[in-house]
Amino acid sequence: MSERPLILITNDDGYAAKGLRVLMECAADYGDVVVMAPDRNASGLSHSFTSGRPLRVNDIERREGVVAYSCDGTPVDCVKLAIEHFCSRKPAVVLSGINHGSNSSVNVLYSGTMGAVIEASTYGFNAIGFSLTDHAKDANFDYCVPYIRQILSTTLANGLPEGVSLNVNFPIGQINGLRVCHEAKAHWADSFEHRVDPYGRSYWWLTGRFICDDDNPDTDERALAEGYASVVPTQPDYTSYEALPLLKKIYGVDR
Amino acid sequence: MSERPLILITNDDGYAAKGLRVLMECAADYGDVVVMAPDRNASGLSHSFTSGRPLRVNDIERREGVVAYSCDGTPVDCVKLAIEHFCSRKPAVVLSGINHGSNSSVNVLYSGTMGAVIEASTYGFNAIGFSLTDHAKDANFDYCVPYIRQILSTTLANGLPEGVSLNVNFPIGQINGLRVCHEAKAHWADSFEHRVDPYGRSYWWLTGRFICDDDNPDTDERALAEGYASVVPTQPDYTSYEALPLLKKIYGVDR
Repeated sequence: MSERPLILITNDDGYAAKGLRVLMECAADYGDVVVMAPDRNASGLSHSFTSGRPLRVNDIERREGVVAYSCDGTPVDCVKLAIEHFCSRKPAVVLSGINHGSNSSVNVLYSGTMGAVIEASTYGFNAIGFSLTDHAKDANFDYCVPYIRQILSTTLANGLPEGVSLNVNFPIGQINGLRVCHEAKAHWADSFEHRVDPYGRSYWWLTGRFICDDDNPDTDERALAEGYASVVPTQPDYTSYEALPLLKKIYGVDR
Repeated sequence: MSERPLILITNDDGYAAKGLRVLMECAADYGDVVVMAPDRNASGLSHSFTSGRPLRVNDIERREGVVAYSCDGTPVDCVKLAIEHFCSRKPAVVLSGINHGSNSSVNVLYSGTMGAVIEASTYGFNAIGFSLTDHAKDANFDYCVPYIRQILSTTLANGLPEGVSLNVNFPIGQINGLRVCHEAKAHWADSFEHRVDPYGRSYWWLTGRFICDDDNPDTDERALAEGYASVVPTQPDYTSYEALPLLKKIYGVDR
């Protein structure tokens, strides 16, 4: 029986994405790999899951140390289903990515890559999302690989604090080092382009611009802008603990 | 020109849901109401948005002080699109719900209702999600209404702290009061029922059980279990600030 750690991998760009293949090959040096990835591009699906219809699974690949499936669900579905039905033992770590495009700052909210990671962490698994700030299909992941190896081996050796997962983003090109940092405050300035179809009916296309005015030097955006990989420890509790006392006062309650 | 505040309303159960109608009627006493809600049940869509296809909008209702539309996007899409193209002025508050079913604790991660609320808060709007812990289509929202009035009028008068939105959940039946609290730690114990279709092919249906072992007395789950409405101040930063020093030490970096 194998004593190698089991490494579960998913993503949101779909099983055919280059970033997923790079992550698979990298992880295969550290353990037995199970891949369960969406059967299509599932970007922007955040933490969504599927309950209104059942899921289908396809066999993609099977070789020494690597088994890969695709599934018609969301990245969160992939994690849930793989852990229960497609992993022969408990994963030592759940990886997601390498995403084609940034998941830094507020992008983590929308990200299917990070949805899968945070989902895995709520079950108590070590989980890490990797993203490169390059949307290109043929993006060059070569500079990311040594950092992925470092972070993966460190996590396999030490684990992560309970309930904490990692959101790792890489800048394009050479990387100056690694920084442990927090999310930058930012938002998307959205606009919708109004168009009219050949039948005279309106439709709206989303476009947007990322706005970050956060000049704190310890953010992920700053790290990436200075050519560093950003490592943000991430947890799933949305509570604003700072706001609790003020709201208790406003509502006149002591708990 | 009207001086009444503009109140934007969405949900994830779809524009025909009873909970949305109750919230519309309630809000219409406080301002001019614009509704932009999904044209179908869009539960479990979390913070997902639509970029791969354009959005369509339908006129649903137009009467003194109330304009309602439906849209084929997600709850987050509804907020983005309504703010840019369907609100005549800046909303004083964005409301979501009343959801049929709980969005307490870790459920906030998956919730389209709260996805819309958190989205609105990243743009700097006051935003509140309301949910009743009853999935029934004909759920009784009567006991919620006085609390919605209190929270809505308080928010219109005072605003909310910057970047903070409210996640309000109601227990079924009579309500003992209101508590300001934090999310309970919990997770879903998922399982998938494996079935075989008439053509001999496998499919998997998600089922799940909510597991909360958190015995902290100041959680939303405790408040609901004791018959109180839970008000959780919510913010969109996933960073685990507690884990930063340990991770800096592990990776040997000072930032």
